[in-house]
Amino acid sequence: MTKYFFDTEVRGYELDSYGHVNNAVYISYTEQARWKILKDAGLLESFLNKDLLLVVTETNIRYMRELKLFDRIKVETTINLEAPYVVFSHNVLNESTGFKSAKAIVKTLLIDKEKIPQDIPDKLLSIIN
Amino acid sequence: MTKYFFDTEVRGYELDSYGHVNNAVYISYTEQARWKILKDAGLLESFLNKDLLLVVTETNIRYMRELKLFDRIKVETTINLEAPYVVFSHNVLNESTGFKSAKAIVKTLLIDKEKIPQDIPDKLLSIIN
Amino acid sequence: MTKYFFDTEVRGYELDSYGHVNNAVYISYTEQARWKILKDAGLLESFLNKDLLLVVTETNIRYMRELKLFDRIKVETTINLEAPYVVFSHNVLNESTGFKSAKAIVKTLLIDKEKIPQDIPDKLLSIIN
Amino acid sequence: MTKYFFDTEVRGYELDSYGHVNNAVYISYTEQARWKILKDAGLLESFLNKDLLLVVTETNIRYMRELKLFDRIKVETTINLEAPYVVFSHNVLNESTGFKSAKAIVKTLLIDKEKIPQDIPDKLLSIIN
Repeated sequence: MTKYFFDTEVRGYELDSYGHVNNAVYISYTEQARWKILKDAGLLESFLNKDLLLVVTETNIRYMRELKLFDRIKVETTINLEAPYVVFSHNVLNESTGFKSAKAIVKTLLIDKEKIPQDIPDKLLSIIN
Repeated sequence: MTKYFFDTEVRGYELDSYGHVNNAVYISYTEQARWKILKDAGLLESFLNKDLLLVVTETNIRYMRELKLFDRIKVETTINLEAPYVVFSHNVLNESTGFKSAKAIVKTLLIDKEKIPQDIPDKLLSIIN
Repeated sequence: MTKYFFDTEVRGYELDSYGHVNNAVYISYTEQARWKILKDAGLLESFLNKDLLLVVTETNIRYMRELKLFDRIKVETTINLEAPYVVFSHNVLNESTGFKSAKAIVKTLLIDKEKIPQDIPDKLLSIIN
Repeated sequence: MTKYFFDTEVRGYELDSYGHVNNAVYISYTEQARWKILKDAGLLESFLNKDLLLVVTETNIRYMRELKLFDRIKVETTINLEAPYVVFSHNVLNESTGFKSAKAIVKTLLIDKEKIPQDIPDKLLSIIN
């Protein structure tokens, strides 16, 4: 199963009053991991023109360890087709500590501007599995 | 089962490039609903001093309908104790349309500064169920 | 000079690791104050269709006092026309303490989708001064 | 005058409903540029312990060109001492287009937990100018 990677580093403004990364920010990390996959598949243009939109219908995320300022993060992603859903499995890995920080399953649906579900384009199909 | 309420209105900076509320923002709405419950239970001081921290260990959220600018939102919350977890069930209701927009189950753990799980204080117990 | 008001309350996820409202969040408060003015002037439709866009070209903000969780905020706004710019002067007032927390001058330019500066529509003119 | 650099790439969740980077996000980019400078100066520990806090007292930012998804950004920073203020001058450069996107002057004050202004530590002095 092909793995896709998005690297980032924890930023000061991503910390909350507890001094660790706020739980909503993890969701944003996984969103950017998906944007990067779409770009690398050559699909960015269709998404920016809004011919296609990949909307999130469900997210299940388990938080395992906190993230601190300047921790180096790798979001590791695999993709499954559960028609009509495209399901992304993300691991948020903390490379500064070697521990997994969170895992998330994000179910998405491909629609057009009129919110009609669309067939998965070949460019996206080719990177699934 | 007692219901708690947090009201808000969709703000311009909460929209993403699709023109609707970004999926991570829903997570923030539910977070604020929980802060309000803690405040109303008279627990804010302990949380700001970090004698107590309510950390999220798991979030399951289903997105049902999109939210648009200036939609009036009511987050309706109930609380269960599944020791040692305090589990919040949130409905994100769109009062401008009358539809439910999302539902989320957020599992939290009460810890202290040293990350030791803590007994649920009476003030919090009294508002559960 | 007419004053416009936007009320909010500091949310838990708006705090940074210093335990007070992050400096970028003030910018978002003033942005929402402007969205509300556009809505109240009956201009929201044109802005959502992107027939009109009010883009920020310059922001000067002075931070005077910090804001804490659940502080009640009133953003007080006046508007000046300095053609071709529409200039918003915002005071961020902390009603929980009675002190002014920040003041901001935000210079904006009205453009269309092709980034061509547009005449100020009568609906907007009528609420300036 | 020494220049410091912070590199980033525009993320999908940083776009607003206009499809470009929201004005508040630029403020966050410059904040992270400053966090990186503190870290590289060996000052992170003191800041995380809150022995020292660098609070923003004023920001002047001019927006020159919009930023789009996946644009590669370099924030170039110089630092001046205008006692008691430490003043950061940031250029937000778009390396994907070759154009400057924004410039910001951010005035900061070094305080301790009790909000007493502090002498600039040697580690910070040594990287100014």
